[in-house]
Amino acid sequence: MNELIKELRELTGAGILEVKEALTETGGDKEKAIEYLRKRGAVKMGKKADRVANEGIVESYIHAGGRMGVLLELNCETDFVARTDDFKNLAKDLALHIAAANPLYISHADVPAEVIEKEKEIYKEQVKGKPDDVVEKILEGKIAKYYEEVCLLEQPFVKNGDLKIKDIMGNAVAKMGENVQIKRFTRFVLGN
Amino acid sequence: MNELIKELRELTGAGILEVKEALTETGGDKEKAIEYLRKRGAVKMGKKADRVANEGIVESYIHAGGRMGVLLELNCETDFVARTDDFKNLAKDLALHIAAANPLYISHADVPAEVIEKEKEIYKEQVKGKPDDVVEKILEGKIAKYYEEVCLLEQPFVKNGDLKIKDIMGNAVAKMGENVQIKRFTRFVLGN
Repeated sequence: MNELIKELRELTGAGILEVKEALTETGGDKEKAIEYLRKRGAVKMGKKADRVANEGIVESYIHAGGRMGVLLELNCETDFVARTDDFKNLAKDLALHIAAANPLYISHADVPAEVIEKEKEIYKEQVKGKPDDVVEKILEGKIAKYYEEVCLLEQPFVKNGDLKIKDIMGNAVAKMGENVQIKRFTRFVLGN
Repeated sequence: MNELIKELRELTGAGILEVKEALTETGGDKEKAIEYLRKRGAVKMGKKADRVANEGIVESYIHAGGRMGVLLELNCETDFVARTDDFKNLAKDLALHIAAANPLYISHADVPAEVIEKEKEIYKEQVKGKPDDVVEKILEGKIAKYYEEVCLLEQPFVKNGDLKIKDIMGNAVAKMGENVQIKRFTRFVLGN
């Protein structure tokens, strides 16, 4: 029994008490206990973003016979999730998306303030002469549009334009039952 | 004949007069004309470093089931060379080497001056009390050693420690008959 507890803790990253409870509730069945723990994970979802995600995978995608390449680090909380096909496929989809959609940042928060200021100045020039409240509204819309163009999480997914990448990530968190995060990416285009 | 000249120019990146000369010298044989042009290329080697290298390949290497990844851009002058096995294998070898040897920079010139200053300070502490000229000699040796540790071109090749990466690159230039350069690389280690 102790061996099984140890194995389950390693596989799921869950605490010893949670694992014992899971085994009690599932009659000591390993697969069912994992499912039980993952379901519990899904219940605790609201707290997920605080939890440490430093397992995962480094994925690459080479496009057009080597004229473009993407390197991506996708994180989750446990090696158990990192080794699932769902997680691996998510990493593949994201790398493909980055190759096609050329994001410059992961999220809003990564866009430097001076870049946004510069964008705003350009937009202000474009709407000069309109009333202040109208200008404000237009600026808001244009900035949102800008984020959608350059931030990975805000971009429409290239394989399904109805979903943004942040929706894909949200679905992954729900399905996998743990925090899943895009840590970093880089994209090389030949001769650029 | 004009079609053949056009094709050879695209394949080799050579000028129209060079291509015409090559075809005359080889009796219009395409393969021999390419070989002739490559040999001529080798003769002009001294000038190669000045020539533009913005063809090439983006190569990736994923290590240890996705716990580490490397993305590399290797440049050459023509698409013709970029598509050779020699060039592709060089890119693969370099990506593998970067994964194993963890260089921080491509060459000396990429190491920031403040990093070298800091290294020197540490070394000076280590050799305090020795005569100035001895200190200077030791410092030189230690800095050279430091370059060997952190600069890709100075590192001993992981597949053959007798050669530095710069030797590998020099051999490639000689063999392929055009300028070959490591443009950039990045290396992700999971959770770092």
